[in-house]
Amino acid sequence: MKLAVTGLAAVLTLSALPVMAKPKPVPVAAAPVSVEVQAAALRDDALKSNVAYDFLSELTTRFGPRPAGSDSEKRAAEWAAAHLKELGFQNVHIETFPLHVWARGGPETIAITGEFAQPLVGVSLGGTTAGEVEAEAVMFDTYQEFLDSAQDLTGKIVVILQPMAKASNGSGYGRMSGTVRAKGPMEAQKRGAVGFVMRSLSTDGNRFPHAGASAWSDGKGIPAMAISAPDASQLGRIEALQKAGKGGPVRIHMKTTGQFLGLKTSQNVVADLVGSEKPQETIVVGGHLDSWDQGTGAIDDGSGIAITMAAAKVMIDHNLKPKRTIRVVFWGSEEVSQPAGDTTETGGGAFREAHKAELANYVAHAESDFGADKINNFSLMPTDDAAFVTKLGNLLYPLGIYQDTKATPGGGEDSGAMNGFVPAFDLNQDGYRYFDTHHTPNDTLDRIDPQQLSQNVAAWTATLWLMANTDVRFKLPAKDTK
Amino acid sequence: MKLAVTGLAAVLTLSALPVMAKPKPVPVAAAPVSVEVQAAALRDDALKSNVAYDFLSELTTRFGPRPAGSDSEKRAAEWAAAHLKELGFQNVHIETFPLHVWARGGPETIAITGEFAQPLVGVSLGGTTAGEVEAEAVMFDTYQEFLDSAQDLTGKIVVILQPMAKASNGSGYGRMSGTVRAKGPMEAQKRGAVGFVMRSLSTDGNRFPHAGASAWSDGKGIPAMAISAPDASQLGRIEALQKAGKGGPVRIHMKTTGQFLGLKTSQNVVADLVGSEKPQETIVVGGHLDSWDQGTGAIDDGSGIAITMAAAKVMIDHNLKPKRTIRVVFWGSEEVSQPAGDTTETGGGAFREAHKAELANYVAHAESDFGADKINNFSLMPTDDAAFVTKLGNLLYPLGIYQDTKATPGGGEDSGAMNGFVPAFDLNQDGYRYFDTHHTPNDTLDRIDPQQLSQNVAAWTATLWLMANTDVRFKLPAKDTK
Repeated sequence: MKLAVTGLAAVLTLSALPVMAKPKPVPVAAAPVSVEVQAAALRDDALKSNVAYDFLSELTTRFGPRPAGSDSEKRAAEWAAAHLKELGFQNVHIETFPLHVWARGGPETIAITGEFAQPLVGVSLGGTTAGEVEAEAVMFDTYQEFLDSAQDLTGKIVVILQPMAKASNGSGYGRMSGTVRAKGPMEAQKRGAVGFVMRSLSTDGNRFPHAGASAWSDGKGIPAMAISAPDASQLGRIEALQKAGKGGPVRIHMKTTGQFLGLKTSQNVVADLVGSEKPQETIVVGGHLDSWDQGTGAIDDGSGIAITMAAAKVMIDHNLKPKRTIRVVFWGSEEVSQPAGDTTETGGGAFREAHKAELANYVAHAESDFGADKINNFSLMPTDDAAFVTKLGNLLYPLGIYQDTKATPGGGEDSGAMNGFVPAFDLNQDGYRYFDTHHTPNDTLDRIDPQQLSQNVAAWTATLWLMANTDVRFKLPAKDTK
Repeated sequence: MKLAVTGLAAVLTLSALPVMAKPKPVPVAAAPVSVEVQAAALRDDALKSNVAYDFLSELTTRFGPRPAGSDSEKRAAEWAAAHLKELGFQNVHIETFPLHVWARGGPETIAITGEFAQPLVGVSLGGTTAGEVEAEAVMFDTYQEFLDSAQDLTGKIVVILQPMAKASNGSGYGRMSGTVRAKGPMEAQKRGAVGFVMRSLSTDGNRFPHAGASAWSDGKGIPAMAISAPDASQLGRIEALQKAGKGGPVRIHMKTTGQFLGLKTSQNVVADLVGSEKPQETIVVGGHLDSWDQGTGAIDDGSGIAITMAAAKVMIDHNLKPKRTIRVVFWGSEEVSQPAGDTTETGGGAFREAHKAELANYVAHAESDFGADKINNFSLMPTDDAAFVTKLGNLLYPLGIYQDTKATPGGGEDSGAMNGFVPAFDLNQDGYRYFDTHHTPNDTLDRIDPQQLSQNVAAWTATLWLMANTDVRFKLPAKDTK
């Protein structure tokens, strides 16, 4: 199916080549075309735009990793704010908030000692403790087996070899990040262990360790690391040799260097396309600017801020003003968020608190934080405006995107902090490759497919233009309304 | 094309399931089958054998990395010798030789400082110097551009961004390992530079740095590192920002820890299937036991020793004795070899010197040191025995292997040390993936495809059986004969 694109579309296309050329005013009010025809034209124009890739390239090149609360994150936020002003966004400003900052202190090591002596590839979990231990390893094939074990773990290093399932919707991740990674170190400590090692939450076989937050330990926990998938397989094979009587106990030496540096600040970068008719009715979208420290945060989540920013920039390039306000937020400090943590120390939580008085006027929120591969489907909260849903479906179908009518949208750690106050919508990427790279040194610009990135921008452009130029309203789930 | 396999082949197949069962004597002399029919049956049996994979798995699991001259290499050699005896090899022994050992002293770091501050992923080159420097980087797109440059490099860090070409025959590697990597650090030092950084000799885009030998510097050189391909691309993008007036000079900080530990020893492991009729006529084959320190040396070169050993083991399993001797050597200390270095400090050179008196009786030499992907072609030195060439071609064709009649075989750093004394033959693997992983942390068992590994064993089995049971003789190139 192809949408008929006529009239204004031709004008838009002409005015948009090259994209960076000075925009020509397009007489929207005078144009005899519907909002959805405009949206389709903007969508098709977005497919040709390099704005997202160029922004992502400069961000990741210039600043490299951007850990929450770091100087790098701060400088990136300042650069991004200046850049957003240059691009033509309005009300661009930075909102700071306090954060207890954790950082690695230098090189970390993990190695098998003794009979099977060899180095392993590992990285300590965020929020865990600097220390140096050597002890006998006790291996568990699953986290549940460890929780259920009656074995005396006093003085031992607990090793969890459980692999993570690979799926396009990333469903293998959530459960394990909230259990093995978040709580594993504390559970091991409770049982007397002196160290904790887990197989990375990873879906590929490359020898990269995947970083990620564990529950805060306030510097009183035990050294805790994630090792690469091949290293976990190696430990599994050593265990098999042991069980076959071909080797003695395995000893592991760990040196971790992470520590809390005290109370510092992180920041959200906020930029608007102010609505021409109903500026207080706001659609808030974005991604997070911070990243883990091993890679340069291209898929997680430079691409998310690049995509949502570029979607709005397509409108600016055509001198088109949405009727409602489109607010783009580059949230800070997402990676330190915790299932049961203090959400005001994340960009999402801080933004919600800072804007609480406005939230009733917000029409919808969404974020892009699942890489930059092709968007597969969208989901919406319930609405009485059936025509809007049909129109959006028609706009996104040519991009290979269908509506997932069974899913309840919720954003993620960033915009999701507004759940209960503001209805969410989701544009869901294919995440099959995402956890191959997520939180590793390999999360660099090289992982981005420019063509799929453009498909993302096109989908966001069409969705935002339609949403900002209709009267659609979405419902909050009754019981979740606060 | 399928070869007719009759008579003994059926017996062999029956006796060989399972392979690890006690071998049944096969009455070769009585069997009314030709050598090539025997070879075909052994070949097909080798395709079902797990001997190579099991050996490779235990070697890489038990010992991890096996740097030349290390305790790990020594323990692996002792284990391998005991294993070879158990498997039924004869005359199994270890031959030691002296080696000036170089080793990393601990974690190394490389980072951009200042305006573009961010860590890079790098590893120091073998034989280079421990040190810590910070200086302005001067980037060159090619090595030739650096050599030709008139720029004053005093006090600078030289960065070579030249990428390596990807090819099935690995042709992109040799020229660059012998120039950029071997000589680059010294050339930079000559021009007053205080550090040397090169893009890894790599054919993929994962963020692994590739180790490798540089020319010896006797501890008086400058810190020299290889950075991963994505890091080289990152530096290239930073250079582009600079050239666009969007940034100042790039400064790099390097901390390297490698040093020479003095004169120690390495060793070759030698094992025979003694010939039943002409034991002095020897075919010598093998691979190298040592590996770089980042991975566990599965593709480089645990697979090579596993393949050649397993090929001979198929004969043992059938209680078949070759007429000529098949000698399998696990060479030590291959990775430190230098284009212009002292070859008696490598396993290949030491073996040649130790066995000089026997070399005139050696029929041929070959090695497997190009991973474990499928063998594509073979090449032979000239022979008057045209029937042998036809028979070998017929034996290998069903495995998808053709004769490369244009190539001159030469072995590699190991058996190739005998060039000029002993004719070489080559069984050449498809190396398209090889330099994706070679010398990186990612060189682990996970990279091995068991099915392709078995194809290798089958090809070696057929080739060795045919060569050891005919009177074929190969010629040395006249001018190279010493």
